[in-house]
Amino acid sequence: MTQQIQNGSTDVSRRYVLGAAGAAGAAGLVAGGAGGAFGATALRNEPMALTTVGSAAVPFLGKHQGGIATPLQARGHLIAFDLAGGVGRKGATALLKRWSRAAEEMTAGLAPSGDNQIALDAGPSSLTVTFGFGRSFFAKTGLTGQLPDALAPLPPFPSDELVAAHSDGDLWVQIGADDALVAFHALRMIQKEAAGTAHLRWQMNGFSRTPGATARPRTVRNLMGQIDGTNNPKPTDATFDERIFVPSAGTPRWMADGSYAVVRRIRMLLDSWDDLPVERQEQVIGRRKSTGAPLSSGKDGTESTAVDLDKRNADGSLAIPADAHIRVAQPESNGGAAMLRRAFSYHDGFRDDGAPDAGLLFVAWQADPLQGFVPVQRKLDGADGLTRYLRHESSGLFAVPGGAGKGEYVGQRLLES
Amino acid sequence: MTQQIQNGSTDVSRRYVLGAAGAAGAAGLVAGGAGGAFGATALRNEPMALTTVGSAAVPFLGKHQGGIATPLQARGHLIAFDLAGGVGRKGATALLKRWSRAAEEMTAGLAPSGDNQIALDAGPSSLTVTFGFGRSFFAKTGLTGQLPDALAPLPPFPSDELVAAHSDGDLWVQIGADDALVAFHALRMIQKEAAGTAHLRWQMNGFSRTPGATARPRTVRNLMGQIDGTNNPKPTDATFDERIFVPSAGTPRWMADGSYAVVRRIRMLLDSWDDLPVERQEQVIGRRKSTGAPLSSGKDGTESTAVDLDKRNADGSLAIPADAHIRVAQPESNGGAAMLRRAFSYHDGFRDDGAPDAGLLFVAWQADPLQGFVPVQRKLDGADGLTRYLRHESSGLFAVPGGAGKGEYVGQRLLES
Repeated sequence: MTQQIQNGSTDVSRRYVLGAAGAAGAAGLVAGGAGGAFGATALRNEPMALTTVGSAAVPFLGKHQGGIATPLQARGHLIAFDLAGGVGRKGATALLKRWSRAAEEMTAGLAPSGDNQIALDAGPSSLTVTFGFGRSFFAKTGLTGQLPDALAPLPPFPSDELVAAHSDGDLWVQIGADDALVAFHALRMIQKEAAGTAHLRWQMNGFSRTPGATARPRTVRNLMGQIDGTNNPKPTDATFDERIFVPSAGTPRWMADGSYAVVRRIRMLLDSWDDLPVERQEQVIGRRKSTGAPLSSGKDGTESTAVDLDKRNADGSLAIPADAHIRVAQPESNGGAAMLRRAFSYHDGFRDDGAPDAGLLFVAWQADPLQGFVPVQRKLDGADGLTRYLRHESSGLFAVPGGAGKGEYVGQRLLES
Repeated sequence: MTQQIQNGSTDVSRRYVLGAAGAAGAAGLVAGGAGGAFGATALRNEPMALTTVGSAAVPFLGKHQGGIATPLQARGHLIAFDLAGGVGRKGATALLKRWSRAAEEMTAGLAPSGDNQIALDAGPSSLTVTFGFGRSFFAKTGLTGQLPDALAPLPPFPSDELVAAHSDGDLWVQIGADDALVAFHALRMIQKEAAGTAHLRWQMNGFSRTPGATARPRTVRNLMGQIDGTNNPKPTDATFDERIFVPSAGTPRWMADGSYAVVRRIRMLLDSWDDLPVERQEQVIGRRKSTGAPLSSGKDGTESTAVDLDKRNADGSLAIPADAHIRVAQPESNGGAAMLRRAFSYHDGFRDDGAPDAGLLFVAWQADPLQGFVPVQRKLDGADGLTRYLRHESSGLFAVPGGAGKGEYVGQRLLES
């Protein structure tokens, strides 16, 4: 899964314009016909002008980077790079400039210079490209004076089974898009721009739901089948910004309006999990599998029904068991800690032992990992019944600065500090 | 978009109903607003009633199996199984019954018995599950008398770099769906039903465009950026059925209305490819990258403009070069041979040598491989300028019987012959 790229960067200056895709965005929904003898053949050859999927764009410039409060896209790539020897601050600065320019263009549906044009005729498809710095970046660029306290190494957790080569990294890029080819294209362009400056350390591919595949928009179920992220802070919450983003007046100054991303590749022991009866799975989680309603709720419970940790069953047992995931992970159990979990699923085929190599590319966003991920994971690891079915195999912590303004590049306040 | 949900053919106790998804299908397209400070956040938190994606169903029962003439879905899995020792015809028969029942239920949006429920609240999302038999199946089940001549081993091609462990197999299953979780769920259920009877030989994950991501419905671009499958026979062609499907009166009898699938995992040398100027890429293919128009066409050429192999440039050179892919691959260059190419892209990260492990999960359908894939590949291999950028790493040939009728299972006419 590791690796580097060896393209020379080119000076070609060609851009493609959305044209048809952008125009079609206004065309609305054209219903497909009923189809012939084998309905589906004709059925999907009809024009499907669902081009809001392709034409939806997430602004690259702004107070915060995209890909944090942005709803999870159908496809994602996580990539870590290490700076090549001797590149230093100057080379890193040039790279962040190139990356920012390419990302700004691609997220707007434009082709960066030297584009390989593989995603022609797709709109931006809600593409986001998010950049972060790992702890090892600072010494290599002479910027240790700017190293945030919050970027202290994550503590080891007893059940960690981390692979160093698939963890950490000087630079981290998160790509998300609702079309797999758009995401792959962005990945290739980001790697092309890195050639000669930074080499690939690791790369992971993830996915989530296709827009429109579920009745509830964006219901995220993980590969265990459980609705995920129910208790996530919502961008409309009054406390969302303070929990997720470093304050505008926070320290270090260059991290104003930024966030910290904890990245964990969490393999799920799906064969063991699937052997459990659904009722037992629900006790491990604390929620009903079908609806996401907490086990403390009655028949009318929904995903949004408040959790009642004190509720008892008729036999006196806790409705939400003592080791249920949501009891242990609840903000109320952790002094109000909160993080925004924004996880893709992954599935890389099968391991040599026959088990699926599949699980969660867990990405958690918070203003301070010591108030967010760390205390929660400390409690989960061991106490949480779900831990038995999970293996944390990769880990990273990255400082993700605020978004770039017009004419700026991401990380400018750090690199020009 | 149509729903042809055939309820009632099962004895399953639990079923989930499309409910809201079906209802929302009529709600039309809710335009996303431009959004607030960070537009897309608001934009995609709005209900996106694109639930035709989730509720679209491809019938499992019918003259032909689904997944052949069905338009390519956004996500695919190819899986080969080998029968466990001693299973024989009886065990294989029971497996095909279990698989057919599960596939019929899942493609209709119902949960098969023992369902792990991971795709709850998704509709069928155009799920297809297609079953085929490899040559090695017949001796293991005492059915060598039914082995089709067409299932003779594919000839070796000079540039093949095949890995035996990732090739062939007793049984082959192709899964496609427009939602990744629906496809993964089907994969897990198919594997669960195989437990004890057949073990996984190889498995590959693929993808194509997300419905609605491009203005032109279902434009398939491969990872080289080229529009793929332009010259594919179309289900509306008068000769489609005779080229793709074994005649109803064909031999062996059990293959009536079936088809033969050639499966090739074709890695693309994307770093080398991306180093070529676009103009050179277009000469290798014979079509313009942006539009898919043949190089023999003028400025108004489109993907559907007829190819003129004799057209010459002002300097006398062939407009479509002698080694251009479309010249060598054209049916006109191959005595009218035709196959239906229905390829997913794949991307499994990076190889140890730093190159992307990515390319095409090429699946070609034809009534007779000796009239379809074999002569075309014989010509392509070596003569085709594209060959330099491709590596065929896996290969399989599978006999895919006709579809099951009501109360039947796929392969019944073989297994009860």
